[in-house]
Amino acid sequence: MTTKIILDTDPGIDDAMAILFAEAHPALDLVAITTVYGNATIDNATRNALYLKQKFNFTADVAKGASKPLHRPPVGATVVVHGETGFGDLTAPDDITEQADPRPAYQYIIDTVKANPGEITLVTVGPLTNIALALEAAPEIAGLVKEVVVMGGAFGMNDHRGNVTPYAEANIHDDPHAADIVFCASWPVVIIGLDVTEQSFFTGQYLDELRDDAGEVGQFIWDVSSYYLRFYSQKVGLNGCHVHDPSAIAYVINPELFTLRKGAVRVVTDGPAEGMTIQKFDNRKYMNDEWSSMPNQRVGIAVDDQALLKLYRESLIAYSQQ
Amino acid sequence: MTTKIILDTDPGIDDAMAILFAEAHPALDLVAITTVYGNATIDNATRNALYLKQKFNFTADVAKGASKPLHRPPVGATVVVHGETGFGDLTAPDDITEQADPRPAYQYIIDTVKANPGEITLVTVGPLTNIALALEAAPEIAGLVKEVVVMGGAFGMNDHRGNVTPYAEANIHDDPHAADIVFCASWPVVIIGLDVTEQSFFTGQYLDELRDDAGEVGQFIWDVSSYYLRFYSQKVGLNGCHVHDPSAIAYVINPELFTLRKGAVRVVTDGPAEGMTIQKFDNRKYMNDEWSSMPNQRVGIAVDDQALLKLYRESLIAYSQQ
Repeated sequence: MTTKIILDTDPGIDDAMAILFAEAHPALDLVAITTVYGNATIDNATRNALYLKQKFNFTADVAKGASKPLHRPPVGATVVVHGETGFGDLTAPDDITEQADPRPAYQYIIDTVKANPGEITLVTVGPLTNIALALEAAPEIAGLVKEVVVMGGAFGMNDHRGNVTPYAEANIHDDPHAADIVFCASWPVVIIGLDVTEQSFFTGQYLDELRDDAGEVGQFIWDVSSYYLRFYSQKVGLNGCHVHDPSAIAYVINPELFTLRKGAVRVVTDGPAEGMTIQKFDNRKYMNDEWSSMPNQRVGIAVDDQALLKLYRESLIAYSQQ
Repeated sequence: MTTKIILDTDPGIDDAMAILFAEAHPALDLVAITTVYGNATIDNATRNALYLKQKFNFTADVAKGASKPLHRPPVGATVVVHGETGFGDLTAPDDITEQADPRPAYQYIIDTVKANPGEITLVTVGPLTNIALALEAAPEIAGLVKEVVVMGGAFGMNDHRGNVTPYAEANIHDDPHAADIVFCASWPVVIIGLDVTEQSFFTGQYLDELRDDAGEVGQFIWDVSSYYLRFYSQKVGLNGCHVHDPSAIAYVINPELFTLRKGAVRVVTDGPAEGMTIQKFDNRKYMNDEWSSMPNQRVGIAVDDQALLKLYRESLIAYSQQ
């Protein structure tokens, strides 16, 4: 049986890697791609999603989402990491005929969740603005979604604390208020943060081999990644890249790759630690505890990175041979 | 050569333990006790300080300080830990003849620091309101203080994250804005937080032996601690108490008892993690970094607890024999 997913994304280079992974794997039914500002502007992110839909003949809908965070001033597209239009050295062509659904992403999410009660897994690999807007407009969807799988955050394990600030990960930093709403809602959330995504690594050699062995899709991933790998080489000092967004897809395909820790999660929404994610994972009692009434969510604390890399490679190769 | 200290404190049971330790040790010259709300109301805290001054014939001045935090709503005295008036089962008598200095604590601090340039170590074992007020009124004192030694905060080491909330320690939680001002000022700050104070433990037996061996002062510490030990027994499930405030004094007497980590420290001032202390202790570069322009401070990450317990016991016994 396949899992129906709506993938909320800001493509973005590792977003493209995640979208193609979701489309490729037979256990997933990619119902829709909903877009959000983040790695790119909302217009570029949406164009990039439509470009992928057209190039690889996705049946998935594309719905255009939020252009800015709920409350905080916009951080702006991360051009240094994802390039001018979000796809590194590539630019989506002007002649895309595929069109976005007329509804804004949050409304598309509400309608689709209600039409498929208990069946939709929301997978988010960008800022959580669309999901928070959907929850605010229709709180009842919390009881109708199967699961929410979030790539975002950093919980300080294995020395992983933040990437855009010393203590915040980009997706959460882009809209900390939205993230806090999503984590505090009464639905099951699994958070795949830097603690696990930085434990998996696509080396330059891995991506070369994917280009050689996975046909058109392997070539596309290699092409879109070249800018990203230059960033990693020049700014991070690594030959290759961490496996951020595809890790959330890997969780949906095979949760057993990950070790999770239970506990309520809150987000710091102001000040120097803005965007920091914090989980209360013990049962100690405190005089003041703004976690105690919040639902237990699950946070990834370890990953079988070799199995994840194997799963990704085999999925893309099989897809290229269809 | 002795170190001149002003001890800013909210007595408070472990505050009494710290005040008597500072008075007892010959390496320290306790110039003044400045009081602050926190464990007790400002009136009770000041009365308790004057009571100690009178009972043990301190030459130290007492100056009365702030009654409430800079910006946040007051948390209120921690009666459950420190008792109705701050000294557990004891109540300071009504007939105290000793009087506080006419100046408010922050002004006393400013005047005394200016009169003793480079010589005063500020030791704080309560909320940092007085120190922030002094800095705001006379920023130039930052260059005139020898060192600031703060008992407060929690940095997540050894699983120590908070005591009044899952991620905040009481002194910082009581006035996070003041703490952020103090940690960001251009003076050398050493922070002795729960990461180290919860590594040292006064057992019931240790306090019994101190009562038997340290005369009047040992008896007083035993008397004032009985309420505190009931709290620890009933609420924390421990026979004894952590060594919070005396640890800051121990640092001034013998810094080599502690291992420190360098890096800028900020405080979360709003939201669920209000009062959380965060240090940036690596040299990684980030797109957004509200720590990068702040001074390097030092945070205690380990303590030789057995040596600290020995130092405390021997200091009090020697004092009782004078």
